[in-house]
Amino acid sequence: MYSLKELQQRISDIFQQEKFLATPTSLYEPIDYTLSLGGKRIRPLLLLASCQLFGGDIEQAKDAALGIETYHNFTLLHDDLMDQSPIRRGQPTVYRKWSPNTAILSGDAMISLAWRYFLRQPHPQLQSILNLFNETCIQITEGQQYDMDFEQRQDVTTAEYLDMIRLKTAVLLAGALKIGALYANASPTNQEYIYQYGIHLGLAFQLQDDLLDAYGDVSILGKQTGTDICDNKKTYLYLQALAAANPEQHNLLTQLYSTKPTDNSAKISQILDLYQQLGIKQSTEQVIEQEFNQALHYLQLIDTPDQNKEPLLNLGQKLLHRDS
Amino acid sequence: MYSLKELQQRISDIFQQEKFLATPTSLYEPIDYTLSLGGKRIRPLLLLASCQLFGGDIEQAKDAALGIETYHNFTLLHDDLMDQSPIRRGQPTVYRKWSPNTAILSGDAMISLAWRYFLRQPHPQLQSILNLFNETCIQITEGQQYDMDFEQRQDVTTAEYLDMIRLKTAVLLAGALKIGALYANASPTNQEYIYQYGIHLGLAFQLQDDLLDAYGDVSILGKQTGTDICDNKKTYLYLQALAAANPEQHNLLTQLYSTKPTDNSAKISQILDLYQQLGIKQSTEQVIEQEFNQALHYLQLIDTPDQNKEPLLNLGQKLLHRDS
Repeated sequence: MYSLKELQQRISDIFQQEKFLATPTSLYEPIDYTLSLGGKRIRPLLLLASCQLFGGDIEQAKDAALGIETYHNFTLLHDDLMDQSPIRRGQPTVYRKWSPNTAILSGDAMISLAWRYFLRQPHPQLQSILNLFNETCIQITEGQQYDMDFEQRQDVTTAEYLDMIRLKTAVLLAGALKIGALYANASPTNQEYIYQYGIHLGLAFQLQDDLLDAYGDVSILGKQTGTDICDNKKTYLYLQALAAANPEQHNLLTQLYSTKPTDNSAKISQILDLYQQLGIKQSTEQVIEQEFNQALHYLQLIDTPDQNKEPLLNLGQKLLHRDS
Repeated sequence: MYSLKELQQRISDIFQQEKFLATPTSLYEPIDYTLSLGGKRIRPLLLLASCQLFGGDIEQAKDAALGIETYHNFTLLHDDLMDQSPIRRGQPTVYRKWSPNTAILSGDAMISLAWRYFLRQPHPQLQSILNLFNETCIQITEGQQYDMDFEQRQDVTTAEYLDMIRLKTAVLLAGALKIGALYANASPTNQEYIYQYGIHLGLAFQLQDDLLDAYGDVSILGKQTGTDICDNKKTYLYLQALAAANPEQHNLLTQLYSTKPTDNSAKISQILDLYQQLGIKQSTEQVIEQEFNQALHYLQLIDTPDQNKEPLLNLGQKLLHRDS
């Protein structure tokens, strides 16, 4: 039984042992840059922790762990380009460091590399694993599309927003957990519980991300704060504020969200001021707490010894109380 | 035994029966637009013709045929954006009709849709099929990267160029054929012969494409001619011309290829004039003929009845003597 820290170390080793450089270097250097920058590597961690929870051999699932992180990083390359985000993990994003075409093509290559990892080791459940992985990829792409569509719409509801972040973020955490369970031949019921754990953890995680984008510490976060406000993103914070606002506040909010000034500092502080008047930080923290409790509920339903759940419990706590 | 025409009809039916529209429509409409525009659908045709050649049931392979064409069309969406090509099959390309972000994200979704098709029907050889498909995807991406790199380099050799088009074009034709052979449980030797048939056919096909870009009829072609010259693409025609040129012609060629004028008509006619002086059209036609004969050689080596090879022979002839 590995602790959370030991699993993290194992994942770090797996990534260090893997060679991402190949020819043409113009294609593979940005991939190596991205996968070597690290990040929290939450998805491979969830995959291996779930495999271990159900008594599986994590060495059998390590290529899937590489695959899921490679796929996740592909989404970052393309999303950063589409969203025009200049910084990721404290470093310039690939489309800024190289070019938009590099972000497109190296991203495309990463999808195939992810599949190569998934296909590298045979497993009796491989077709189920590949199906789940691929359907998850489709949902993520749909989530990103909704996210971009919402930027152009003025009538997005909080329910639509939660469905969007379920697709864009939660299904990959849930998918990683269920893939780990499949490698361990977990029962269908346990597969469903661990999947639901991932969905609610993912919702809590993404709402936390919205919160950090507005209230995080830029030096810890490794990226600018207020980017969602600059991009007029209908975040959970914004949609909650709209719903709670009086007519005057509503007008001010929508008026501010119809502009894209060159200097965003005034816009950001006005929005944050409105959020404070409406108690948005607190109400969002409450929803995060609720989703996290739902996640814990599903984790408790799983019929494995409690001490086996420790690494996942610790990871959940860390994600909920993170500051970046 | 289906004739080439009957196979084409079957593929047309398969694509008409398949629904490509789904929600969010902003994601799926460009996919439906692309896959409904048609085109020659050479890759699914090769896949089914190869399956049939080796006595397989083409209905078992039809989802793979959908998958390979969907993947091919994804590459067009991204390549057209990266190459800034405004027209494809006589219609505006996706990034022009919608936006660059749409071309990126709908293209990404098409990769997953291709995988969904490949995973839809079980088959004893499925893991070999998926591995071959995925390694082919990686080679295509590398080929596109070399293609873009060559635009920036002044020292590209004809050997490098042939290797680039092998990766960018030939391996997908060869892969389609070998996947068809795998569905029919063909022997490893026959798998290799049909793959080599595809490689040489693919090289002939791509060199023909270079020729048509310079000498094709725009009304039949459905796109502009001379686009390779405008983009300073080191095509086989250009690289052969460089190798055959006297110092004066060499200077003029490289000087013309260092410019990107707003009006390209003078540049195009000067290059075509040099090609004529150097007999480039004829020498390229000769190389195409050689590659085509190599392809036929491998087709002859396959130990199946000659009449079963008819559809592939007809297709090869059509590809060699096409005018679009």
